[in-house]
Parts: sequence; structure tokens; C-alpha cells
Amino acid sequence: MGVLHEISQNVRNIKPLVSSLLTRRASQIKEELRQGVKKPYKEVIDVCWDDSHRAGVKPLSFVRQVLATCIHPQLVMSDRLPMDVKQRAQTMLRRCDGGSVGSYADTSHPTELFETISEFMKRRDRGASAGDLYISPGSLWSLTTFLSTLVKKGSFRTGVLTPVPGHCTTISAITGLGAVAAPYQLSEEHGWELHLEELLRALESAKRTCNPVALYIINPGSPSGHVQSRESIQEVIRFVSEKKLFLLVNEVYQDCVYGEKKFISYKRVLREMGPPFADTVELASFHSASKGLLGESGLRCGYMELVNVDPTVKRYIATLFSANACAPTLGQIALDLMLNPPQPGDPSYPLYKMETQNIWNMLIHNVKRVYEVINSLPNFLCQSLEGGTFAFPRLYLPLKAIQRAKDMGMEPDTFYCIRLLEDAGVLVSPGCEYGQKDGTYHIRICITTTEETMEEVLQRLACFHTQFMKDFK
Amino acid sequence: MGVLHEISQNVRNIKPLVSSLLTRRASQIKEELRQGVKKPYKEVIDVCWDDSHRAGVKPLSFVRQVLATCIHPQLVMSDRLPMDVKQRAQTMLRRCDGGSVGSYADTSHPTELFETISEFMKRRDRGASAGDLYISPGSLWSLTTFLSTLVKKGSFRTGVLTPVPGHCTTISAITGLGAVAAPYQLSEEHGWELHLEELLRALESAKRTCNPVALYIINPGSPSGHVQSRESIQEVIRFVSEKKLFLLVNEVYQDCVYGEKKFISYKRVLREMGPPFADTVELASFHSASKGLLGESGLRCGYMELVNVDPTVKRYIATLFSANACAPTLGQIALDLMLNPPQPGDPSYPLYKMETQNIWNMLIHNVKRVYEVINSLPNFLCQSLEGGTFAFPRLYLPLKAIQRAKDMGMEPDTFYCIRLLEDAGVLVSPGCEYGQKDGTYHIRICITTTEETMEEVLQRLACFHTQFMKDFK
Repeated sequence: MGVLHEISQNVRNIKPLVSSLLTRRASQIKEELRQGVKKPYKEVIDVCWDDSHRAGVKPLSFVRQVLATCIHPQLVMSDRLPMDVKQRAQTMLRRCDGGSVGSYADTSHPTELFETISEFMKRRDRGASAGDLYISPGSLWSLTTFLSTLVKKGSFRTGVLTPVPGHCTTISAITGLGAVAAPYQLSEEHGWELHLEELLRALESAKRTCNPVALYIINPGSPSGHVQSRESIQEVIRFVSEKKLFLLVNEVYQDCVYGEKKFISYKRVLREMGPPFADTVELASFHSASKGLLGESGLRCGYMELVNVDPTVKRYIATLFSANACAPTLGQIALDLMLNPPQPGDPSYPLYKMETQNIWNMLIHNVKRVYEVINSLPNFLCQSLEGGTFAFPRLYLPLKAIQRAKDMGMEPDTFYCIRLLEDAGVLVSPGCEYGQKDGTYHIRICITTTEETMEEVLQRLACFHTQFMKDFK
Repeated sequence: MGVLHEISQNVRNIKPLVSSLLTRRASQIKEELRQGVKKPYKEVIDVCWDDSHRAGVKPLSFVRQVLATCIHPQLVMSDRLPMDVKQRAQTMLRRCDGGSVGSYADTSHPTELFETISEFMKRRDRGASAGDLYISPGSLWSLTTFLSTLVKKGSFRTGVLTPVPGHCTTISAITGLGAVAAPYQLSEEHGWELHLEELLRALESAKRTCNPVALYIINPGSPSGHVQSRESIQEVIRFVSEKKLFLLVNEVYQDCVYGEKKFISYKRVLREMGPPFADTVELASFHSASKGLLGESGLRCGYMELVNVDPTVKRYIATLFSANACAPTLGQIALDLMLNPPQPGDPSYPLYKMETQNIWNMLIHNVKRVYEVINSLPNFLCQSLEGGTFAFPRLYLPLKAIQRAKDMGMEPDTFYCIRLLEDAGVLVSPGCEYGQKDGTYHIRICITTTEETMEEVLQRLACFHTQFMKDFK
């Protein structure tokens, strides 16, 4: 037994992800298939993670061409690359110290990237200027680092109200900091809406075990797929203002909105509500290059915008963001390209337009088909998908299946996912990972995959589900 | 005053870096020069950070060609790229989910990268196998995340023995976690050797204010430039074994060793010492793609190796490394290329050999010239540079200069650095940032820059220094 036999309780409280176990099993099955083991399917389809390239979506040519030229600047001599690609790459390289993406990037004062973000926000929020910006290797990193400034020591732990369902990684981050994730339920029966009375209930309940200081929102919702209306956002803003909570808003899915509703940023609603809200409610909003049409998760970059935060506090946050990590240069370039894509008239525009339109068509197709197919199956119910990149349908599992799962020492929806993987070669993740009302079960399916793959997933899922329900009737 | 008016004391304890202020002033001066303001120099030379590309070193063509092809796979059709570049890129892409560097990379079980690291270690450590490996966005991230498992709550804070001089970012990380950095002095008079009696003194002294659980070592030393002998490493291993301390070793400068001494890894010495040390001393070693001949700091990737750590603890660490961040895919590829470069016979080998030899010649030149020039100047003393990428010479400042600095409310070596920047356009950082014995003053100069730039730096430094000493005589 060594020095490290007793590790920090905060770390000990972090739960390992069930999905990681499923992913590992999926890798084993892939290996078995390679070795010629007979299965009812020829390959495993992975729609578990929010990772569009993994799920088969192709990267945008413009983005990749610019990045490749930044990496290997001799490509400006290539006659196969459009002029605007070369120009953009040269602009990006001029920003890099020593003209190389291999130098550390200044993440506390990257003036030009801040300008790109500000311009993007002016367009998005009808002229509202940007607050204070901080670049990071991703929105989870931003959130964790920001939260570390909020967490106080002491016997009464710091609390953060978090949505159910939500992101398991956020819960891990909060727990790892020694804080408490205090759950509030989204209303599945109402398309996963956020209800004020539930926020009030959750806050009062949290106060019994911790000191709640912040409310964490995911909009567009993930994995819920709900998109908040302006009225709902206003309600939340009034709530945090009255209860003196810090507002943390994950807005990384802002490009992925499918229905009639439009995405409206919290900052815009806050500004438009005027005083006293506009100049007092403290807000941190998170965005990322990992999601949406770009989907460059592997490059790791995002930004955080702070509104109405005390300048003294911002100085500490700037130190944390600049001292502890520097976002990868190529991720920063990808973020810039995402927020400032080719425009009509640019040589790269036609191809860019076509590629993004294809991704868009794919998303629309998948949203429609997931909803149709799942709702056509018995004991399976999917709310309408307004935004985000997941479907989170509810499973009404037979008692026998629930019993079998419990006998095996696992959650009933984990049991369903394992069977789906083993029997049909489809990798999804169980609702228990993201939080759900007691006694309800769900699965999470990523919809950013090609139409063909999604059809195959739905076909396998339909067969499996029907058989599963029969087996455990 | 908002919710965030009182932020965490841990975060409040983190000191902002003096170098950041200097860097910001350097940016202003650059802007002034652009606007035509007359100065005694035409450009600012930045040898402040450990960032070779920033300081003018060119990236390795092989590495950049492979990365560009991974980013933009159509480049495999290019007839300008060597065959081994294309093959390597294809091998790397096969490892990426969906065949895209845009997908999240599995950082907890990247089998193939682990194999590359293991093979590298077998060569480096004469056959000793790898311990347990964890990939991260960089060695500071690895260290901070690992330390978070060691830090306990409670009134008596967790302590980590840290070298003086050392890395200011490490101190920030330790402080930010609520732990205490307990200093031990390296002996400047003996070429910055680490002495056992000083470790003993530091440990006893630390015990009065905290609970020391780990010893942090930087070897090759940074900014000291010292390289530990096998005997010194053995002494440290016996010390931590007896005192039951966890051993944290930063070995990121292992490729940068210039003198007669060779780099020997702590793990190798530990293994070769045999029982009881070999199978009980707990060790974490850190390496990175940011330093050495590769110098790809902007891509962000490194790894941590654990030896003799309890399996239960390792499970938590794996969760932390996989849940909280995923190292950028391109950084992981760069790390793989660094540890498995082209071999004689490969089409890319001649160019790779020439480029690395040029960087090597440059380092040898700079090491020699920095030592010669600084030691030829009055009141300036540089220990011999055995390794690492910095010189950390001692300044013997006149009382008048010290008084002037104090009148201005700054550290004397910060005053020297600001004057050097303003008067001679050379950006270095002050010793106070890295820790130094009371009453001693130093500057830190990065030596990974071209020979021409280094000659220009030394010429400007010599003129400035001579004048400064006259002015304050």
C-alpha cells in the first residue's frame, strides 16, 4: 500500500461512465468480427457519442483545406487549392507567433479571434456586442475551470442546479471539484420543457444539502432535444435574478435547431429585457467548435462569454484560462472558420454551401425518421426533436426485463443497450447515464450520422426492439 | 456586487505571471514600431517562453506533411509528398474513429499510441517495459489532474516539495488545487545540483505548515539547465522511499542534453535499483510533444507514465483523464511521430536527419555562446548548461539598481527585464517568477532560437548590460 492508497474524496465520488464499458465491449465485438466470428451483423454501428465524424459525417472541405495549409504552408503553392483557402491560411498564420501553428497560442488575449467572435455575435444577437471572451480547449474545460472559482471550501458544499437529463461529464466535473450537482427535472410529457415550479422545488430541496450558487442550463437541450422559447428564457432569467444564482448556459448546439422555433441566446434575451436584469444577472455562456455542422471535436476548442461579471473576478478567470492550458492552435483556427465561413462570391462558397446543405438535409431526414420509426414501435416514445444532436426516447420496459437486469446487477436501460449491442450491433447509451425520473428508462441515440447509417440503425433497432419486447412479455 | 463577488480562496491565491505583463508590453512596443515610433532597435526579439517555433525554429517537414495529410486526406494524391508520409498518414487515420481527426480521440485506451510509447521506452530504457500510460493535452494538465487525486481537504493542507528555481505554472496549479508548494533550493554554486541535505531540510520545514505527500523533480532541469547523474537520482529514490513521498518527475526535456552526461529516466534507475525500491516507490513521469526537437507546443499533447501505483487509484485516474478532456487528435499524432520518427532507408529520412541535425547544431551553438558571452560580462554569472532549453544566469545588481526597483514597487530583476525590453528590444523573464534564493537575481533566456537570433540577442544584451551596470554604479 503506497502513498496514494487514499485518494481525494472528490475524485472518489466521480462515477466511471457506463458508456465507456459499452464502448469497450463494442471494440471487442469489432475485433471478433475482424477475426471472423459469426454475428447477425457485419459491422457495429456507433451512434453513442456526440461525435459526427465518428458517426460518418464528412468534414467540411474549406475548413480542412485551410487547416492543412496552416500546418504545411508550402501548400500555398498548390494549384489544387482555391485562392480564398490560401488567403485565409495566410491570415491565420500571421496571427501565430513565429508564423507556426506549433507555437503556444495566446488564449487570454487572441485579439483577432475575439474580433471574429464579436462579429459573429453581432450578427447572431442583432447587434448586441460580445461580453468578455475566454478561449479554451472545449466547453467542458471552460465550465470546469469557471466552476473552480465558485466552489468554496467548508462543511456546507457549493451546489449547482443541473438538468435531468443532462451531461454526465458535467456531473463528473462538478463532483470532482467537491461541489454538488443538485438535479432539476425537465418535463418529458411536455417535450422536455423546463418548468419554473420545478426549478423552485429543486432549489429548495438543494438548500437542505448544499449551498446552491448557480443554475446550469443546456439550450438547445441535450440529450432532451428541446429548444427553449423566449418566454421560457425570460422566466429563467427572472428566477436567477430573484434567487441570486449565477447562470451557466451551454449553447453549443445553437446551430442545430430543426423545428419552427429559432435559437435565441440567453445574452440577447437578457439584454432585451433591459434593467434591472440586463445589467445585473451574471451569465456565462459556452460555445464550441466540436458540435454543429463543423463537428471538429478532435481539434478541441471553444469559448466562454461572461456577462455582468465583476472585473476583479474576471482577472482571476483570465489567469486560470491562460496559466493552466492553452487551447490548441488548430482548434482556434477551426473556431474562427466556423464563425466566419466562406461568403457568396468566395471561390470556396459553392462547395461549402453544398456540403453544409447536405449535412443539414441529413439532420432533417434523421430527425424525422427517428421520430417516425420509434413512435411506430410498441412501448417506445420519442418527444419531437427541436434541436441538439440526440434523440432520448423513453422505453417502457416489461417487468420481466427489469427483473432480469436487476438480477444481473445492472440498470434496466443498460441491460437493453447491452442486448442491442450484442444482438444487433448498434451502440447507443442508456438513459441512466444522463439522469432520468425514477422508474423511467431511456436510450440516447446520436442523430448526426449519414441517412443510410440512420436507416440501418432504425431497421436494426426496430427488429431488436420488437423481439426484445416479445422475449420479455 | 453579484453572486461571484467572493471567489474561491484557492483561485485567489494564484499569482498572475509577471511574464504576461512583460509580454503585453512587448506587444505594445511591436505595435509602436509598426506605427513608425523610433526605437534603438527595429524589432523585438522574444526569448521569454519555452516555445521554439515562436523563437524562429522551423517545424520538421516530415511531421507537418503527415499532419497535413491527416487533416486533408486528398493530399495522398499529391505527387509532392514522399511515400512514407502518405503511408504514415493513412496508418494514423485508420486509428481515428470514422477515419477523421475531427472525431474525439480515445485518450484512456489509445492502443496504438500506447504501443508506440512502449516501444520508445524499451529503446530508451534498455528494454524496461512501460508502466501505465495516460494521454493528455500536455504535461501541466497531466500533473494538475494527477495532483487533484492527492489533495485532501482539511485544515492541514497537502504539500508538494517543488524545486527553486522551477516552473511558475506548476506553483499556480498546486495553489489552485488548494495545496501548498513547499520549496527546496537547487545549489547554484554547484551547477544547480540537487542536494540531499536540502531535501531533508525542506521536508522538515514543510511539515510545520502542511502535510507533504510528494516530491516534484524537473530533470533535465528547467530553468536550471542541470542534468542529474545516476547517483543523484538514486539518492532521490532512496529519500522518497524512506520518507514515503510520491515521486513526480517532469522529464519533458529528455531530448535536450548537451554535455557529457546522458539523460537517464527515473523509471530506469528505479528498475535497475531492484527491490525494495523497484516495486514500491510510486512514480509519475511526464513527457510532452511540446519540447525538444519537435517543439509542437501549439498542438497540445503529452503523456504520463505511472509506476507502482495501486490499481484502484489507477481506475480513478483513468476516469479523470478520459472524462474531463480528450487530447487533441493532431497532438496525439505528433506525439506518435516524435517517438517513432523516420528511420534510415525511409524516403523522408535524409531530410528529417538534416533538419534535426540543424536544430541540434543550433542548440549546441547557443549553449556555448550564451555561456561564453554572459560569463564575459561583469556582474553576470552563468552555470554550465547541461540540458533543458533555458539559461538562468545570475545577475549581481548594484545597490542603486535594487533601490530604484524597490522605489518603483517591483522586483529588481523585473526592473532589469523591463529596461532590457524597453532599451534593447529583448524579451526575457525575471528570476523572481521561477523562485530564487533571497537576495539573488536572475534572468531566464530561452535558447531554442536560430543562431543568428541568439547572436543578436547576446549582442544587445551585452551592450545593454554594460550600460545598465554603468548607469547604476
